[in-house]
This record gives sequence, C-alpha cells and structure tokens, in this order.
Amino acid sequence: MYIHQVAAYLPAEVIDNAHFTRLNGLSHEWITERTGIRTRRKAAPDENTNTMAVEATRRVLAQAPDFPAASIDLIVAGTYTPHDTIYTVAHAVQRELDVSDIPVVSISSACSSLLNAVEIVEGYFALNKASRALVVVSEHNTAYNNDLDTVAGHLWGDGAAVLLISKERLAPTDLFVRDIRTGGAGNIGKANESVTLKPVERGIVMPYGKDVFIHACTYMTRVTQQILERNQLSVDDVTYLIPHQANLRITKNVIQQLGLPEDRAVSNIEELGNTGCAGAAIALASTWPELRPGNHIVVTVFGGGYSYGAMLLER
Amino acid sequence: MYIHQVAAYLPAEVIDNAHFTRLNGLSHEWITERTGIRTRRKAAPDENTNTMAVEATRRVLAQAPDFPAASIDLIVAGTYTPHDTIYTVAHAVQRELDVSDIPVVSISSACSSLLNAVEIVEGYFALNKASRALVVVSEHNTAYNNDLDTVAGHLWGDGAAVLLISKERLAPTDLFVRDIRTGGAGNIGKANESVTLKPVERGIVMPYGKDVFIHACTYMTRVTQQILERNQLSVDDVTYLIPHQANLRITKNVIQQLGLPEDRAVSNIEELGNTGCAGAAIALASTWPELRPGNHIVVTVFGGGYSYGAMLLER
Repeated sequence: MYIHQVAAYLPAEVIDNAHFTRLNGLSHEWITERTGIRTRRKAAPDENTNTMAVEATRRVLAQAPDFPAASIDLIVAGTYTPHDTIYTVAHAVQRELDVSDIPVVSISSACSSLLNAVEIVEGYFALNKASRALVVVSEHNTAYNNDLDTVAGHLWGDGAAVLLISKERLAPTDLFVRDIRTGGAGNIGKANESVTLKPVERGIVMPYGKDVFIHACTYMTRVTQQILERNQLSVDDVTYLIPHQANLRITKNVIQQLGLPEDRAVSNIEELGNTGCAGAAIALASTWPELRPGNHIVVTVFGGGYSYGAMLLER
Repeated sequence: MYIHQVAAYLPAEVIDNAHFTRLNGLSHEWITERTGIRTRRKAAPDENTNTMAVEATRRVLAQAPDFPAASIDLIVAGTYTPHDTIYTVAHAVQRELDVSDIPVVSISSACSSLLNAVEIVEGYFALNKASRALVVVSEHNTAYNNDLDTVAGHLWGDGAAVLLISKERLAPTDLFVRDIRTGGAGNIGKANESVTLKPVERGIVMPYGKDVFIHACTYMTRVTQQILERNQLSVDDVTYLIPHQANLRITKNVIQQLGLPEDRAVSNIEELGNTGCAGAAIALASTWPELRPGNHIVVTVFGGGYSYGAMLLER
C-alpha cells in the first residue's frame, strides 16, 4: 500500500514558555533544556479534536485531485484526547466527506495510534474490504491538560494530520509502505501509571516520566533496528527517521543508540510540543517536499500505556 | 475465523427503576413501557472499564484450557466510556495476560464497537500477523451518566464481555464467523448530536432519541437482510438474532420488520439496560449454552455517531 498525500492542521495560537513561567514558575531555560520545547499550539475555544481533523482532511483532499472524497472507502482515526467518544473523530470526518456505508472507526494506543491505524488499514486492504483509506490523527491535549502542573503541563500541544492511503500506486511521488509493525507493552514497567488520561478523574498526568523516557528510548530504538533488519537494510540506508515527538532528549537518545547522524532525525517538538499521535504525521507532512526517489523513511512511535511501532516507507 | 469462547462480567449492584423515581420522578411503568428496562448493573467504586474487562478476561480464559494466555497474539478492545484513554482497556488486559510484543489497540464506534473489533481481528488474521485474538468490550456507563437526566439517565448499565477468536477451528462447539460487515453513518441524520459523550463538557446525553430510534431500526434491519442475502440465507434460517441492546422497542421493531418470531430475538435489556458495545457480546455469552449444530446467529448493532454492522455466525 501507498501513502499518496499527507497534510497537517495546526491551530493559530502559539503558547511560549513564558506562559508557564507566569503560571507555575518554570523558566524557558529549564523547559528547553529538559524537553527542547520552545512553543506549542493551542486550539481556539471553537476548535476541538473533531474540527482539527476535519480541517486537515480538507487540506489533504485539496492537495489530491486524483483522490476524491467519493472514492474513499475506509476511515481510521486515532486520538487519546477525544472531543466525543460516541460521535468520534472518524465519524466527524465521515460527515465532512459525506460518504455513506464505509467502515469508520476511531482508535487509541495513545501516542502510537498512527501506526496502529495504518496497520488496521493494511488489514482492510488485505481483506479486499477497502482500497482507499483516510488515516486521521488529531490531538486536543490542551482540552485535558493542566497548565499549572509543573511535572508535565508544559509538554503538550494541539494539532492534526491526515494521510491518504491507497492499495495501488497512484503517483510516482507516493510513498510505498514496505513494512509496519506495532506492539503493545502494557505489561512492561509502570505502563499502568506512568502517563494516564482518566477523563472522569482529571486530565493528563505523568507521575513517572523517567519510566516513560527509558522505555521510549529502548522500544523506538529496538523496533527501528528490527524493521531495518528484517528488510535487509542498515541504518545507513535511512534518509529520515521520524520518531514520536515527545521530547528532544528522547529523539537524541534514539539516534545516538542507532548511530544515526543528528540531521537525519525529523523534529517538530521545539515548535509544537508533544502533539500526541499526530506528531509523527505532522512531521511526515513537513518532510514530504524533501523526499527523493530511493529515500527510505522510518517512522517509529512510542505511546503511554505502553505501545510502540515502526513503519518503513520508500520513495 | 472462529469464536472459541465468550464470557461476561457484570458488577454486583442492581439499580431498579425506583432509584430513578426517587431522583427524578420517572415511574417504573413509564420507564418499562418506553424501554423495557427493569434493572441495570452499576460498577462498584473500585471498578471501572479496565477492571471489568480484566475480570471478563479471567473468566473466559478459565473456560478455555486450550486457549492459554501465552498463545494470544492480538488484543482489540472497544469502549466509549474509557477509564483511561492512554493506559487503555486493551493495555490493561495485556497487563493481566502478561503477553509482550503483540498488537494491542482500543477502539470506539460507540455501541457498535464489537463488530468493528471483530472486523479488525479479521484483517490481522488475513495479514498473518495474528491467529489468536481477544476481543474485549467493556462499558462503564454509570461513570459518565447523569442519573437526574429525565431524557436518558435511566437507560444505561455497566458490564463487560470477552470473546476468544482463532483463525482455525479449535473445537466442535466453535462458532464460525461466516461473514461480517460494518459501516459508519456519521453523515446521516442527526448523527453529530443525537447521542454524545464529550468527556470535557459533560456526560452521555441523548437530545434526539427519536432520530436514534429511527436509524437504529432502519440500519439494523437493512444490514441483517443484506448479510443474509449475500450468504443465500433467509430470515427462516436465523436461529437467534442478537441485536444491540439499546431499547426493547427497537428490538421489537427490527424483528417485526424482518418478519422474525419474537422468541428468536435475544434480549438482556430488561435486566441490564443499555450496556453499550458490551450488550450484544453479553447476550452471546448467555445464548452460548443453547446453541446447536446447524444454528445460524446474526449479531447486528447500531451505535450513536452513527455506526452499524452485522455478523453471521454458524454453529
């Protein structure tokens, strides 16, 4: 299968670190040293997970005249910051497209939902139950975040992205999805309490950031090595590594472990913060114009809960 | 693929209609006449979507000595009443099983998630990425419900169920999944506002129950007819119809439209209320001992949002 296009939507409001200095005393230097984050986006009061996903959908379809809405036969959406768990983000996108009677589902494996969503699409394609899918990733972290939280309140940003995926190649610029692998790690470490979002109790909290850090570095490195190895590729073949955008120190740790030059890692964490499962897709959208024939791209993710995955793409 | 076993977990506390009469004045007669509901279960303070799912998992594994936890290579869970959107219900079940490095994901298409989950499993099986899956459905409606709501507060109950699904037949009593079809209908009617659960704003609300009623009756009837037709079966071949357990009047309307005798419809709405995406799976568990060789069972669902589906099973 092939990624035909990808587009992102980012809300307009920019929140800088001075916002947190005023609220909870954390300094710009303290935040950037530990996370790399300088700014993040915040959805407007009339925006939410569903509206951002719809906006990203409009953008990606505008870029793809040969992928009309009427040809779409599957929608899989990811979010852990739902606006509505019944009229889900996937249903909102279906309503925007006005395409009836196609499978539509929203999922969560937290920050790794992008790869679970693509793998679910792969399954529908294998069943011949679909051949043109939308993968939607959208996070409204600021709806659930507590800005006063000095542990993790400064990490989160809002944003969405949408990928158009087709079973057959539609254009020479399509990215071939050569391999994809996902795994849950809910039984590992403090997966049950490191990062949680319990809607009834409170917002996003991250009491065991160190546990997340260690496992994110371990799993993203390992699964990247595994997917390269089983495709007879080496780290030298990787043109771009797009890791989950959680923390610049995690990205640096992963590329160091892999032995990858720093400029091969794509990063938007500095400007956008942690945009959850949308982060890697937003990074793919920004990298898209740089891609050249023969390039290999590895997208690797790690999510609270825990979950991980890697996807090998080829231009 | 085959359903090897199914088991349910229901919390102990029973809430009768007199509870609502005391709170908001709705009488037992008024509630039963409009919904059929006499009682529903309520999770204890230390229970939630994840704990109920884990309890149902323990039960189903205890019933299936030839389906050990270590053999499970996929977990797909459904809920629209999440305890945690990051350490999701699927991750909690993975932690209970202590099986590493298998795909694990939680989904929502509201009350129709059961069939989306089974269809996702079908895709993993087709890819040869899994061959023994857990499908988990768990709803903690009372965590989000407002008992004072005279429109819909009396409808909801808590409960969970787990299905063991394998690619190959394991036992003569396995149910063959002959066909499955799901569809979103987010673009139809008042799908965007009829039933919503916006965690940040408030709980479950259903301002347009009539719109839900009409579409539930239409879609469950139509998709049942379609799945029978494309499998060269007639309504007379249906031993049991297991519809989504939303409202006894919806069930009666569907069987009347289909021309099915009333005793062929399985119902637990009277005792359990609307247990969301768990309802039909709980009904399958209670029907299981009655099933005989040659039986055909149709499970059909409709969810707020909207979504629908049908699954044809054969003993």
